[in-house]
Amino acid sequence: MRVGVLTGGRDCPGLNAVVRAVVRKGVQVYGHEFVGFRDGWRGPLEGETVPLDIRAVRGTLPRGGTILGSSRTDPLAREDGAGRIRDTLAQFGVEGLIAIGGRDTLGTAARLADEHGVPCVGVPKTIDNDLPGTDRTIGFDTAVGVAVEAIDRLHTTAESHKRVLVVEVMGGEAGWIAVHSGLAGGANVILVPEQPFDVDQVCGWVTSRFQATYSPIVVVADGAVPKEGEAALGRTPGGTPGQVRLSGVGEWLAREIEHRTGKEARTTVLGHLQRGGSPSPADRWLATRFGLHAIDAVHERDFGTMVALHGTDIVRVPLREATGRPRTVDPRLYEEIGVFFG
Amino acid sequence: MRVGVLTGGRDCPGLNAVVRAVVRKGVQVYGHEFVGFRDGWRGPLEGETVPLDIRAVRGTLPRGGTILGSSRTDPLAREDGAGRIRDTLAQFGVEGLIAIGGRDTLGTAARLADEHGVPCVGVPKTIDNDLPGTDRTIGFDTAVGVAVEAIDRLHTTAESHKRVLVVEVMGGEAGWIAVHSGLAGGANVILVPEQPFDVDQVCGWVTSRFQATYSPIVVVADGAVPKEGEAALGRTPGGTPGQVRLSGVGEWLAREIEHRTGKEARTTVLGHLQRGGSPSPADRWLATRFGLHAIDAVHERDFGTMVALHGTDIVRVPLREATGRPRTVDPRLYEEIGVFFG
Amino acid sequence: MRVGVLTGGRDCPGLNAVVRAVVRKGVQVYGHEFVGFRDGWRGPLEGETVPLDIRAVRGTLPRGGTILGSSRTDPLAREDGAGRIRDTLAQFGVEGLIAIGGRDTLGTAARLADEHGVPCVGVPKTIDNDLPGTDRTIGFDTAVGVAVEAIDRLHTTAESHKRVLVVEVMGGEAGWIAVHSGLAGGANVILVPEQPFDVDQVCGWVTSRFQATYSPIVVVADGAVPKEGEAALGRTPGGTPGQVRLSGVGEWLAREIEHRTGKEARTTVLGHLQRGGSPSPADRWLATRFGLHAIDAVHERDFGTMVALHGTDIVRVPLREATGRPRTVDPRLYEEIGVFFG
Amino acid sequence: MRVGVLTGGRDCPGLNAVVRAVVRKGVQVYGHEFVGFRDGWRGPLEGETVPLDIRAVRGTLPRGGTILGSSRTDPLAREDGAGRIRDTLAQFGVEGLIAIGGRDTLGTAARLADEHGVPCVGVPKTIDNDLPGTDRTIGFDTAVGVAVEAIDRLHTTAESHKRVLVVEVMGGEAGWIAVHSGLAGGANVILVPEQPFDVDQVCGWVTSRFQATYSPIVVVADGAVPKEGEAALGRTPGGTPGQVRLSGVGEWLAREIEHRTGKEARTTVLGHLQRGGSPSPADRWLATRFGLHAIDAVHERDFGTMVALHGTDIVRVPLREATGRPRTVDPRLYEEIGVFFG
Repeated sequence: MRVGVLTGGRDCPGLNAVVRAVVRKGVQVYGHEFVGFRDGWRGPLEGETVPLDIRAVRGTLPRGGTILGSSRTDPLAREDGAGRIRDTLAQFGVEGLIAIGGRDTLGTAARLADEHGVPCVGVPKTIDNDLPGTDRTIGFDTAVGVAVEAIDRLHTTAESHKRVLVVEVMGGEAGWIAVHSGLAGGANVILVPEQPFDVDQVCGWVTSRFQATYSPIVVVADGAVPKEGEAALGRTPGGTPGQVRLSGVGEWLAREIEHRTGKEARTTVLGHLQRGGSPSPADRWLATRFGLHAIDAVHERDFGTMVALHGTDIVRVPLREATGRPRTVDPRLYEEIGVFFG
Repeated sequence: MRVGVLTGGRDCPGLNAVVRAVVRKGVQVYGHEFVGFRDGWRGPLEGETVPLDIRAVRGTLPRGGTILGSSRTDPLAREDGAGRIRDTLAQFGVEGLIAIGGRDTLGTAARLADEHGVPCVGVPKTIDNDLPGTDRTIGFDTAVGVAVEAIDRLHTTAESHKRVLVVEVMGGEAGWIAVHSGLAGGANVILVPEQPFDVDQVCGWVTSRFQATYSPIVVVADGAVPKEGEAALGRTPGGTPGQVRLSGVGEWLAREIEHRTGKEARTTVLGHLQRGGSPSPADRWLATRFGLHAIDAVHERDFGTMVALHGTDIVRVPLREATGRPRTVDPRLYEEIGVFFG
Repeated sequence: MRVGVLTGGRDCPGLNAVVRAVVRKGVQVYGHEFVGFRDGWRGPLEGETVPLDIRAVRGTLPRGGTILGSSRTDPLAREDGAGRIRDTLAQFGVEGLIAIGGRDTLGTAARLADEHGVPCVGVPKTIDNDLPGTDRTIGFDTAVGVAVEAIDRLHTTAESHKRVLVVEVMGGEAGWIAVHSGLAGGANVILVPEQPFDVDQVCGWVTSRFQATYSPIVVVADGAVPKEGEAALGRTPGGTPGQVRLSGVGEWLAREIEHRTGKEARTTVLGHLQRGGSPSPADRWLATRFGLHAIDAVHERDFGTMVALHGTDIVRVPLREATGRPRTVDPRLYEEIGVFFG
Repeated sequence: MRVGVLTGGRDCPGLNAVVRAVVRKGVQVYGHEFVGFRDGWRGPLEGETVPLDIRAVRGTLPRGGTILGSSRTDPLAREDGAGRIRDTLAQFGVEGLIAIGGRDTLGTAARLADEHGVPCVGVPKTIDNDLPGTDRTIGFDTAVGVAVEAIDRLHTTAESHKRVLVVEVMGGEAGWIAVHSGLAGGANVILVPEQPFDVDQVCGWVTSRFQATYSPIVVVADGAVPKEGEAALGRTPGGTPGQVRLSGVGEWLAREIEHRTGKEARTTVLGHLQRGGSPSPADRWLATRFGLHAIDAVHERDFGTMVALHGTDIVRVPLREATGRPRTVDPRLYEEIGVFFG
């Protein structure tokens, strides 16, 4: 059996670990051959491949990024997309396709499988951890680790200079990185996209923290918005709303805090640091097990499925499940951790 | 309500994070007061306490060890143990006791709760991850991280010198650290207590790995034993069995591999390194959530219970569950990862 | 003898290690007593102190920040500054004062010692490493470590997405962090304040790197400026010069690179991350040795001096030396490392 | 010009960084070609080579180990060794040979250059930092980092369990790793090969540390010996001297401390961990600059020299200098840091 593999969407640590596990088990246990498709869905769309065998995956377990390349190409944005992909698979004799990606990549896989008969199996990855159907996605544990290391560092600066330090982490629609890194990093305020925040309440927490002799750390997901709404982010402190948004929410919030509390505030935007570098041990473990189970699913021709973590087990769920609304932070969890605010 | 807290057994990263969460929520949400008992069960047995309030737990989230001290004292080894503990609690007005520990500490808590009416709530910790009733214990993720970092380092030495490197990790009765760190570290052989190993098979894997131009890393749990049985560990290579055991299984195995394959082999024993230092972000998250839920259980006077991780939820299970046989590595999981051996 | 200690200027890792060494040797070997002055020169100016003895410094070796607090207060900005400081020292019976700081703090110490008879000994710290008179300053090695870890992470993202990644590091007047972290991180372009850069040449390097199948990393010190001059930084890509500067040089350069090469470019600004957290082993070593030698100088009443690293020796140099022009990157060194550009 | 490169002796982090810098500058600036000799002196002795060009060194900067392999082969142990090496160089048209190694490898290079006309340039590496003629050797900073990270971890365990923790680090003839890691790690006792230690004095320090409420960490170089002499290491605690030595000095010392003080003591042997893994930023910097200067020396046919660090400059010294007695820890430095003992 010949099997195709692609990695789509933004890169994250652990992609190579999945590919390696898929190839090791496919070759050694099932005798499969492999075709690597280059740059996500662009690969099967345009027939671009990279060699993929035991040798190609050697030594890749601890390496970040993806040896297959990635892109955000959406093949279903073009009318002949599904047909071209089927043609490419036929041309290379590929009978099963493992797509490793986030909501967009897996959403495409779901539609290709359900509506166009493309034999897809999905593997969920995203540092945002917001895919429904699985307890955790690849890349999340590493991203949280980067954020916590940064927060640990910033504590000492906050204390030495009596400053508010705002840390902007990733999370456009779900605040998983914010709540995990904020809690583990001992942040005094954690703001998430799921709950519009009240700047005055934030300033109240900041002020009370100073009274307790500590300088506060505020962790804010880049998708968090104030109660006044997204438009407020274009406003200068004390100024008129509705202007062009010039900066991220972290920078905006620091300026508001300075304006309202009179305390110095600084922002650190972690950005790409959260998706680079060697995967954490937990991500290597999860990625490897996802890979081993994905090739099982392909071997059993159980297409239209995605591997997922349930507790400590790897299970299969319908790919459709990964294309629904993002899995967001439960309000009860957010309330539970609120004891540490202020 | 006045609540006692103790940490028992061998130390592990995350203990302070539990204590901090217990105190923060207890004081701020429930208005509890706290008594810290010193050195595990020795504290309530001998009436030794340490002050425990918001100030005492400040800044302790990222710190390893335990501010309460620990010991392996078993109060039920003495006839009047349960009575003395009840007396101490009465003396200090303690109406609920949170015991943070592994199998021994929680086994004692279970018996004290079930047989002697001591109002205990348990929190599961052990780097070995072998407690029944919970998906994960505090300390495990950090210990795996230490082991993987070591294995990552050793790869380059193995390759430069064409040597077999044996890494002995903790795991007396369960091979969780071995399988997680071995898989994440890209080990070529992983040996666990659950499966007696065949030295000749290990040597076969080692030899085949050399033929693939790589130098092998062997990860062995310190409780793993060869098929010939525990007694063989006293044997010198090629020598007579049954002598006194002079070294750990890692050192013994390296000597056997050298003797049987003619390849140089060296051993690294990680030992205490696995239980020290700052907890990983995942351990801080788990420890904090365990602490928040443990104080809830105390507040609700739901004694005789232990907080536990099920999937992504924190639940309560009977303390009894933690005193049963150790949770060991499922043979199917061990077989699943066997694709990477050799 | 009673000795005062203060830490001034922006915080950096290793300050506590100096203070600890000063106190340990002062108390144990010389029998000194200590007064900690709070928040840099503000402490002796306003008579604010913190207790400073063996107990106060216990456990502080690995901790970032400063237990004494810091500020950028300049006592010589007020007419009665020197007099007030002399008065405070007299009031507390302080016969020697150890000032740990960068160019500003030590410049003040030099003037106080030379012009006002204040018995100062200086210890050089700054993550920028730009103090004359010493081979290295405290905090530099840690800052480089943070930057290299970030660059290591960003490599995988650059490669997976075929993007230019610009990393802005600290260095307003000297490019030490840029050249050390850029070289150690395998950057393809390194830009420093000492050498105005030619954007077209940078774009040429970027383009040639893409042809070699790698995605480039550009490291730029935040004080670097293009050949067109500082004013150009206010310009939008392809736009008119002379507008208000809206962002740092890293962000500006990324936009220029995108505009001129058509390649995607992203910026990461490390900012405060470089000055926080636990000091590296090399910084702990240097800070400790500086502290041991600074208290020797005080004990010998060798005031108006600064401890400094020459080779592997700690020596004393006149404090004046630390107040001259910043120590910048030698053009020959910059040329030497140019072999890795492009 | 064709240039050979080899790496000899035990591996250490930074070897690949030297090779990469040599090749990058040699090819790009001087137009040299390269021959990699495999496994140290075995390569030119037996004519075994590996391809060495820009492509071969790509991505190797952060990688530990050596892409050329290493061995401890001594070509001068055989009568025809020098001649065979000359023959191999002639056969491959090699006009200059860069030998990267420690005392043995460079001693051989010195004799080959001085007595047999082999055109050698040396680059000093050893984690032990004991080569004369240079302020620092490649690998040392990384090894110290590993040791300090371990000591940081062990502090929490020592404190939680009131145990003495003995950490055995490398250093057969010189205590550089011990003094640097012990000082930076906050050890309470540091023992080096240069100064035979008095077990009773060590026990006195251990006991006084317990009285100060801390649990002690003892760092001991593996070449340290008690005052009673090497033979004592074969003795069981309280037993007769002169038996076979069964363990390292760390294990022996822990048993003695337990016997004499009644405190529990445990040993951690860091061993190979100190020489593996990715080089620290400081080692990458030093290795890269050594490489750039070594190829300059070859290009100028300045053979019989070794590159060396003096202060912040890279200079050339006669290779002979590296073959003398090891550079040991100055007794005054050891006395300076003694303030932290006990």
